[in-house]
Amino acid sequence: VLKVFRQGNRHSIKELEVQVMLQGNFETSFTKGDNRLVVATDSMKNIVNVLACEKLGPENEPFGLLLAEHFLRTYRQVKRVEVTLSERIWERICPGRKPHPHSFVGGVAGRNIVRIVASSGKNDIESGFADLLILKTTDSGFENFVRDRYTTLAETNDRVLATKLKASWVYARRPKSFSKTNRSIIDSLLAAFANHRSPSVQSTLFEMGQAALRTASEISRIHLAMPNQHCLAVNLLPFGVENKNELFVPTDEPHGQIEGTVSRH
Amino acid sequence: VLKVFRQGNRHSIKELEVQVMLQGNFETSFTKGDNRLVVATDSMKNIVNVLACEKLGPENEPFGLLLAEHFLRTYRQVKRVEVTLSERIWERICPGRKPHPHSFVGGVAGRNIVRIVASSGKNDIESGFADLLILKTTDSGFENFVRDRYTTLAETNDRVLATKLKASWVYARRPKSFSKTNRSIIDSLLAAFANHRSPSVQSTLFEMGQAALRTASEISRIHLAMPNQHCLAVNLLPFGVENKNELFVPTDEPHGQIEGTVSRH
Amino acid sequence: VLKVFRQGNRHSIKELEVQVMLQGNFETSFTKGDNRLVVATDSMKNIVNVLACEKLGPENEPFGLLLAEHFLRTYRQVKRVEVTLSERIWERICPGRKPHPHSFVGGVAGRNIVRIVASSGKNDIESGFADLLILKTTDSGFENFVRDRYTTLAETNDRVLATKLKASWVYARRPKSFSKTNRSIIDSLLAAFANHRSPSVQSTLFEMGQAALRTASEISRIHLAMPNQHCLAVNLLPFGVENKNELFVPTDEPHGQIEGTVSRH
Amino acid sequence: VLKVFRQGNRHSIKELEVQVMLQGNFETSFTKGDNRLVVATDSMKNIVNVLACEKLGPENEPFGLLLAEHFLRTYRQVKRVEVTLSERIWERICPGRKPHPHSFVGGVAGRNIVRIVASSGKNDIESGFADLLILKTTDSGFENFVRDRYTTLAETNDRVLATKLKASWVYARRPKSFSKTNRSIIDSLLAAFANHRSPSVQSTLFEMGQAALRTASEISRIHLAMPNQHCLAVNLLPFGVENKNELFVPTDEPHGQIEGTVSRH
Repeated sequence: VLKVFRQGNRHSIKELEVQVMLQGNFETSFTKGDNRLVVATDSMKNIVNVLACEKLGPENEPFGLLLAEHFLRTYRQVKRVEVTLSERIWERICPGRKPHPHSFVGGVAGRNIVRIVASSGKNDIESGFADLLILKTTDSGFENFVRDRYTTLAETNDRVLATKLKASWVYARRPKSFSKTNRSIIDSLLAAFANHRSPSVQSTLFEMGQAALRTASEISRIHLAMPNQHCLAVNLLPFGVENKNELFVPTDEPHGQIEGTVSRH
Repeated sequence: VLKVFRQGNRHSIKELEVQVMLQGNFETSFTKGDNRLVVATDSMKNIVNVLACEKLGPENEPFGLLLAEHFLRTYRQVKRVEVTLSERIWERICPGRKPHPHSFVGGVAGRNIVRIVASSGKNDIESGFADLLILKTTDSGFENFVRDRYTTLAETNDRVLATKLKASWVYARRPKSFSKTNRSIIDSLLAAFANHRSPSVQSTLFEMGQAALRTASEISRIHLAMPNQHCLAVNLLPFGVENKNELFVPTDEPHGQIEGTVSRH
Repeated sequence: VLKVFRQGNRHSIKELEVQVMLQGNFETSFTKGDNRLVVATDSMKNIVNVLACEKLGPENEPFGLLLAEHFLRTYRQVKRVEVTLSERIWERICPGRKPHPHSFVGGVAGRNIVRIVASSGKNDIESGFADLLILKTTDSGFENFVRDRYTTLAETNDRVLATKLKASWVYARRPKSFSKTNRSIIDSLLAAFANHRSPSVQSTLFEMGQAALRTASEISRIHLAMPNQHCLAVNLLPFGVENKNELFVPTDEPHGQIEGTVSRH
Repeated sequence: VLKVFRQGNRHSIKELEVQVMLQGNFETSFTKGDNRLVVATDSMKNIVNVLACEKLGPENEPFGLLLAEHFLRTYRQVKRVEVTLSERIWERICPGRKPHPHSFVGGVAGRNIVRIVASSGKNDIESGFADLLILKTTDSGFENFVRDRYTTLAETNDRVLATKLKASWVYARRPKSFSKTNRSIIDSLLAAFANHRSPSVQSTLFEMGQAALRTASEISRIHLAMPNQHCLAVNLLPFGVENKNELFVPTDEPHGQIEGTVSRH
C-alpha cells in the first residue's frame, strides 16, 4: 500500500509491503477440506487495506501491532499472528534546495523492516532494516587467523571493507517514539562502522551491536548480518603497472557471511 | 562449483551453489579482535573446492555430510555446521532425439536443495527443491470459507490453481539411493497435485504431503510452501464479450501464502 | 495473460506477456497537454485482453500481427505499432509417464519471444527466444588469438563453453506453421552447438546461424547473442591436488559478450 | 571496478560497471575459425583495469572516451567501439552530521550511465541515468483522452503520478565540467517534474525535456522513458469506508510506457 498524508498543501507518503501470516485451528481445512474456519487471503488483504486507510500513521510499529491484534480479536481460531512490514524509503525532491510539498524521489537502497509476532497476551516487536550497502576504504584489516593447508588468503592490515547490512533489534519496552529510537540506532550503527578500526568483520559487528545497545536502553538485543562484499585488489604487475591499493574488483560470489547477535546480560 | 564427470566420451555435470555456516567458539574474535581461532571464509571456499574435486559424486546428500564432518573434525572450535547445497538442473541436448554425450541445456526452472545440520554425534538431512512452478486449469475450487464484512471474494468451484512450490523433507534414516527416493517423492507430489480434486490449497497441500510420506518410508516429515500465484479471470462484459473461464491475468502481488508440515504420528 | 484452451477434458495453456508500443500523431499531447488523440494505456490493455480472449490461438505470430493491425486500423493517428510477445514455457505433468489432461509444470528456463513491427502496408515478423542456458564440456578451445602486453589468458584446446543464448530470426515469408518452423530452427541451433568442434564462440555462433538458415528457407537472417558464462578451472595445486579439468567455478562478471548476425547473400 | 582516490586522509570512491563492445574486421574468426585478429575479452578486461588504475578520474565521460580511443588506436581491425559505464551512487556516512573521510553508504537507487560510441574521427557522448523512482501526490490528472468501446478508465484531475525515470542526453559540444552540467540537468528534470501541473505523462515528459535543453546549451537532445508505476486508489466502499484519495496500491503489471525525445530545432 501507498498512503498519502495531507496537512494542508504539505503531503507525506508511506509505502509499505505488508505480510500477515496466521496460525491456529485450521486443521480441518487441511485434513477434511472443510473451509468454514478459513479466513480467505483475499479477505486478509481487504482488512489490511481498511486498517491502513483508517489507522496507518507515520510509525510502522503501532500499525503492525494493531493489525496483529485485529486478527487475534476478530477470529477466535487464530492463535498466532506474524506481521512483517517492509518500507520503501522516499525522500522529498528539493528544487533549488527547497523541500517540495508533494514530490518525492526514491531514497537509499535498503528497506525498513518491522516484524510483530503476537499471540494471546504477548507481543514481540522487532525493528530493523535490510539491504543497506556500507563500505570503508581503510581502517580495516584481517590478520593472525588460522593458517593451515587450506589457507591461501594473505594477511592484510589495510583493505576495503564492504557489506550489505541487515539489522534487527528487539524492543524490551516501548520507546517514546519508535521512529526516533530507530533513527538513533541506525546512526549509532553507521558511526561505529565508520569510526571503528576493524581487525575483522566479526569485531566490527560486535562494536556496532554494542553501540546500538548503548544508544537505546529500550532494546534487549540486536542481530546483525554482514555478508562480505569482497573488493579484491587487482594485480596489474603482469602489465608493468603498480596498483597502490587503488583499484579493486567488487565480487559477488563466492563471499563470506558473518552474522551475530549482541544481547544485554 | 561445476563438476564434470567423465566416463569415456560420455560426460555428466553437476552445478552446485554451496553455503557453509559455522558456529562455535568464536567469541574472542567478536569481543577482543582475536582472530586466532577464525577459519577465513576464503579458506572455507578452498576446502569446498578441494573436497568437491576429490569427493563430489552424483548425489548431493553424501557430499553435504562429508563437508559438514570435515569442518567438525578439522577445527575443534567448530560446534555446529550448516551446509546448504543448491543445484541448478541441467538436461542433455538431444539432437535427432539422441542424447548428446557432452552437451547440455538448462532444465526446468527450480533448484534442488539439500541442507545438512551437523554437530558432534548428530546429523540432520533435509532434501527438497524450490521455485517449481505448477498449475492446474480445473479440479480446483474454494467455497464455504468465512464470510464477514471483510469478504468480497466470490465462491468458485472451478478456478485456476497455480503456485511456486517449495518442498523439503527430513530423512529419519538413509535410503538406499537419495536420488531415487527424492525422484519418487517429487513424482508423488506432482501426481497428487495433478489428480487431487482441490477444495482449497490447504487440502491439496495435505494430500501432497501424505502422498510423499506414503511413497518414502525413510522420511519422517515434509514441509510444503505454496504461495498462491493468482490467475484472475478477466471481466470482459464491459466490452460485450463473455469470458467463459478462458482468459486470466497472472498476478504477483498481493498473494496468499499457504504453508504446512505433514508428519508421521 | 494466461489463456486456457479446452478440447473436451484435455486442456492446453499459453502464458504471454504482451507489450504494445505505438508511434504516431501524438505531438499535441506532449506539447499542448491535449489528450484528444491519446489512446490510454489502460484501454490498450483492455484491447489486448478482448483480442486475446477472442482470437489468441496456439501460435503467437498470428496474434501479434492481428494486434498490430487492430491498432493501425482502429486509430488513424497510429502510424507504427511494435508488439512484443514473451511466452513462459509450460510442460504437461506426467504422473506415471502419462501426460495429464489439465496439470502443468514450468518448463525450461528461457522464454519464446515474438516481435512484430507494423506500419501501413508493411509487417516485420521476428521470432526467437531468450535466456536459454547451454553448455558443452569438451570440443571447445580458444587459441592463436592476439597476444600483446595486455594478454594473460592461456591458450586452451579443451575448455567448458557455456552461454545464455538469445536468438531472433526474421521471416522473409510466412511458413506453413510458425511453431513447427521455430521448433526446427531451435533444434538446428542446439544440434550445431552440440556437434560443432568449436575454435571460438564466434565460430560456433556462425555455425549455428548457418544451420538455422539451412533448416528454414523462410527466414532471411538470424541474430545470435552469446555472452560467455565463464567456467574457470580451479587451481588446486596450492593444496597438493591436481584438478584434471574436472572442477570449475561458474563466474558471472566480468564476462565476454559475443554477438553476430548471419544473413543470406 | 571500484577505485579509491586518496587526498591525504580524505578518500573518495567510484564504482563502475564497464562494458566495451567492438566491431571491425573479425569476419574470419566467425567464418574460418581464424582467431589471429581476435582481441580476447579477457584482454579487454585487462585493458579496462590498467586504464582505470592509471587514468580514471572523478568524471566518467573522459574515461569512456579514453577507453574507446585506446581500442581504436591499438587495434587496427577495430572500426567502432561502444563503451557503456554504469555507476553505482555512493554517499558519505555523516556521523554527528560530519562527513566521514573514508566511510560510505549506498545512495539513491538509480545509476548514472555514460555511453560513448567512437569510430575513426567521430565520438558520440551520451550521459544520463536509469532507474530513478519519482512520485508526486497531486498536481497530476488525465482527462479528455479517446473514449471508445475499449475505454473503462475514469477521467481524473487528481491522481498519484509515479515512474521509474530513465534519461539520456547527447552532448553536441563538451561542457566545462561534465559532472556539473549533468547535475544541473538532473536538477532541472526533477524541478520540472515537481512543479509542473501535469495533464498527462506525455506533457510532463515534454516539460522535463524542455527544462533540460534550457539548462544546458551543450546538449542537443534528450530522451526520456517514463513507465507508469500505477498507484491505484483502493475502493473501500464495500467495507463502509470512504477512501478520500489517501490509500493506493502500487501495481507493477500491467503498466503504461511513455517515451519521447525532445530535440532543439
